[in-house]
Amino acid sequence: MQSYQEMTKEELLAEKKSLEAEYKKFQQRGLKLDMSRGKPSQEQLDLSMGMMDVLASYVDLTCEDGTDCRNYGVLDGIHEAKVLIGDMIECNPDNIIIYGNSSLNIMYDTIARSMTHGVMGSTPWCKLDKVKFLCPVPGYDRHFAITEYFGIEMINVPMLPTGPDMDMVEDLVSKDEAIKGIWCVPKYSNPQGITYSDETVRRFARLKPAAKDFRIYWDNAYCVHHLYDIDQDHLIEILAECKRAGNPDMVYKFCSTSKITFPGSGVAAIATSANNLEDIKKQLKVQTIGHDKVNQLRHVRFFKNIHGITEHMRKHAASLRPKFEMITDMFDKELGDLGVGTWYKPKGGYFITYETLEGCAKNVVAKAKKAGVVMTPAGAPFPYGKDPKDSVIRIAPSYPSLEDLTTAAEIFVVCVKLASIEKILEEK
Amino acid sequence: MQSYQEMTKEELLAEKKSLEAEYKKFQQRGLKLDMSRGKPSQEQLDLSMGMMDVLASYVDLTCEDGTDCRNYGVLDGIHEAKVLIGDMIECNPDNIIIYGNSSLNIMYDTIARSMTHGVMGSTPWCKLDKVKFLCPVPGYDRHFAITEYFGIEMINVPMLPTGPDMDMVEDLVSKDEAIKGIWCVPKYSNPQGITYSDETVRRFARLKPAAKDFRIYWDNAYCVHHLYDIDQDHLIEILAECKRAGNPDMVYKFCSTSKITFPGSGVAAIATSANNLEDIKKQLKVQTIGHDKVNQLRHVRFFKNIHGITEHMRKHAASLRPKFEMITDMFDKELGDLGVGTWYKPKGGYFITYETLEGCAKNVVAKAKKAGVVMTPAGAPFPYGKDPKDSVIRIAPSYPSLEDLTTAAEIFVVCVKLASIEKILEEK
Repeated sequence: MQSYQEMTKEELLAEKKSLEAEYKKFQQRGLKLDMSRGKPSQEQLDLSMGMMDVLASYVDLTCEDGTDCRNYGVLDGIHEAKVLIGDMIECNPDNIIIYGNSSLNIMYDTIARSMTHGVMGSTPWCKLDKVKFLCPVPGYDRHFAITEYFGIEMINVPMLPTGPDMDMVEDLVSKDEAIKGIWCVPKYSNPQGITYSDETVRRFARLKPAAKDFRIYWDNAYCVHHLYDIDQDHLIEILAECKRAGNPDMVYKFCSTSKITFPGSGVAAIATSANNLEDIKKQLKVQTIGHDKVNQLRHVRFFKNIHGITEHMRKHAASLRPKFEMITDMFDKELGDLGVGTWYKPKGGYFITYETLEGCAKNVVAKAKKAGVVMTPAGAPFPYGKDPKDSVIRIAPSYPSLEDLTTAAEIFVVCVKLASIEKILEEK
Repeated sequence: MQSYQEMTKEELLAEKKSLEAEYKKFQQRGLKLDMSRGKPSQEQLDLSMGMMDVLASYVDLTCEDGTDCRNYGVLDGIHEAKVLIGDMIECNPDNIIIYGNSSLNIMYDTIARSMTHGVMGSTPWCKLDKVKFLCPVPGYDRHFAITEYFGIEMINVPMLPTGPDMDMVEDLVSKDEAIKGIWCVPKYSNPQGITYSDETVRRFARLKPAAKDFRIYWDNAYCVHHLYDIDQDHLIEILAECKRAGNPDMVYKFCSTSKITFPGSGVAAIATSANNLEDIKKQLKVQTIGHDKVNQLRHVRFFKNIHGITEHMRKHAASLRPKFEMITDMFDKELGDLGVGTWYKPKGGYFITYETLEGCAKNVVAKAKKAGVVMTPAGAPFPYGKDPKDSVIRIAPSYPSLEDLTTAAEIFVVCVKLASIEKILEEK
């Protein structure tokens, strides 16, 4: 097929007319489809129902070390859960605190603590005139919501195919003491599905921040969320790399089982250096009587070990893979030659990002909505909801059935084509 | 028996000698007993094992309103959990947010939010020169730990048999805008087991605080923790009373099922006015993806309704009652006539408080320790761990077996007698 840019005005108008007819047909079907939320499908949730059986009334709820999981005690998580999570995120169990059900909540608490109590003895951020965070974009809207809530100024850093633009990151953090952190989803990133390259991780570990209380907020949300068994991305483990680089305290690593077992009923954790752990525990012992040990034990008994998680994630992949492939295949076939946008083919994670011609994303999302397809709002993957180029659209393929998703993708493609033609015609 | 105060020096010395022989015998037994922690016993934990069976792999985890509890969604708790908790704490379900496993964590978060974001638009407390809290004493050490952690100045308010000294409370809050809150355990209080009188609750609801962002932190931890079926304390419901008094926004009410099902694996909640809920949800939606709905459903399916909780608490009472009665009976018999201290006979809750002669508490706790009985450290129930009279000792009867507890109480009684005689002899 010919690129839209190379078409004459007449050719574009003819194509537009034909697309509008197609669009109208979709509209007439009165569809209600949703590609907006990174939610597991019911089929995926069913994979974890066995977890409901591993702790029955006749089962002993005692840990290996004799702790009765039903009673008070154990602030930082039961040992066997630390081992399991440690294997999952490639960290020493001793560097881990197991929390409740939400890694987002750990990140929120980490920022909140820094606001009121600083980081390892630094000035509480609420006492400073200005606190800034670097935000690789596009990124995860809920990260940005936390920093926005605390009045932290957010600075966009472009994502490259290798991860955040490290020239820019290095330059900014070395100069500006007000920059206290950077949000990262380093593996199968939200929303693009990019995994940071080895060089990127090494440069992260070697940062020389002006602020002593600068930390990398390393949200390893999709650490085991591969779509393929062999063709997997590999991410260098950041804690070890920071230690090797002489910056052992510079990173907080977050993870959870939310998209492994049940979202909202999983287990979340932080992994970080001994110094950071000590700092965190000073707060934690005041904040809570400890997290849900029974649920920790439930996860351990269900998976048994990291191999159990691997096998479980193969089942998730079997459900997700056809959805991801259908979409990128359709993009290749329908949009590949048109010169109206770009996308990555993620090897894992929960999202595909379609990058439109500049100024088209809102229009595409609006058109899709009018044809019955809900997308993540354009702009959402940016701080303050502002996409400077109005070009990024996050696609969440997990929740709908493959059939519904196929229809939704067909509609999306028509909307992209239409919006692109409108844009090109404007400029002609 | 004769009061120690009325004894001659010779009589006291003779009594002392006999007690020291008794004490030495206990020491020689090399006991390891613990009356320090308000932990349910294994027998009590076993009462909730049925909860492990109500959600099995063949059970539908869908709420009444169609919500799949396994997936994302529902920020403030599933409706049926709000109904159950609402019945438990006598509040409208619409006034409730269900949280995770720890009501302490809700209280911490409430203070933390007030520090960084104020209360319903007030100046964030971290921007104020001074923030103060009223602390009825003796009280719950973990409340005081939260306010201490945030650098909030704590002012002791004496507990009377009717609750906090309301003359003092009214006077202080009406004059001092820096006073932003008061910690209350209004029913079967920790550690004394006192329930606030009707007058006390009514006066609370009618407070005229100088600070608009003053709130009553009403920790209704022991709302259904009665020892008796008929002879129960009654507490006026504070939210409704505040509403009647024209102060609907003045109270945060906290509760959990920690000492109903499993500590650490229960469900906690806040109940408050619509205005406060709106303020809280602004934070909550940034802080978390929502709390564990599966565990909420588990509790609902296990108890079915409030009658289920009532019947369940009768079983707890059957386990706890003999322990409480053994201790207060022994105090009556052994210490009743000696004039060496006072105590209440709680009708519920988790603690008994023994108030020694002034300056004896630390000595009693130290003596008990040397004879193999661990008590809560003297001073713990006071802000900064400082008991101005060194006279309050918290006794936690729940965890040990009745047999062990009886031995521990015998040792405690000997220690009280010895420490009292030492004190009286000093003064003679």
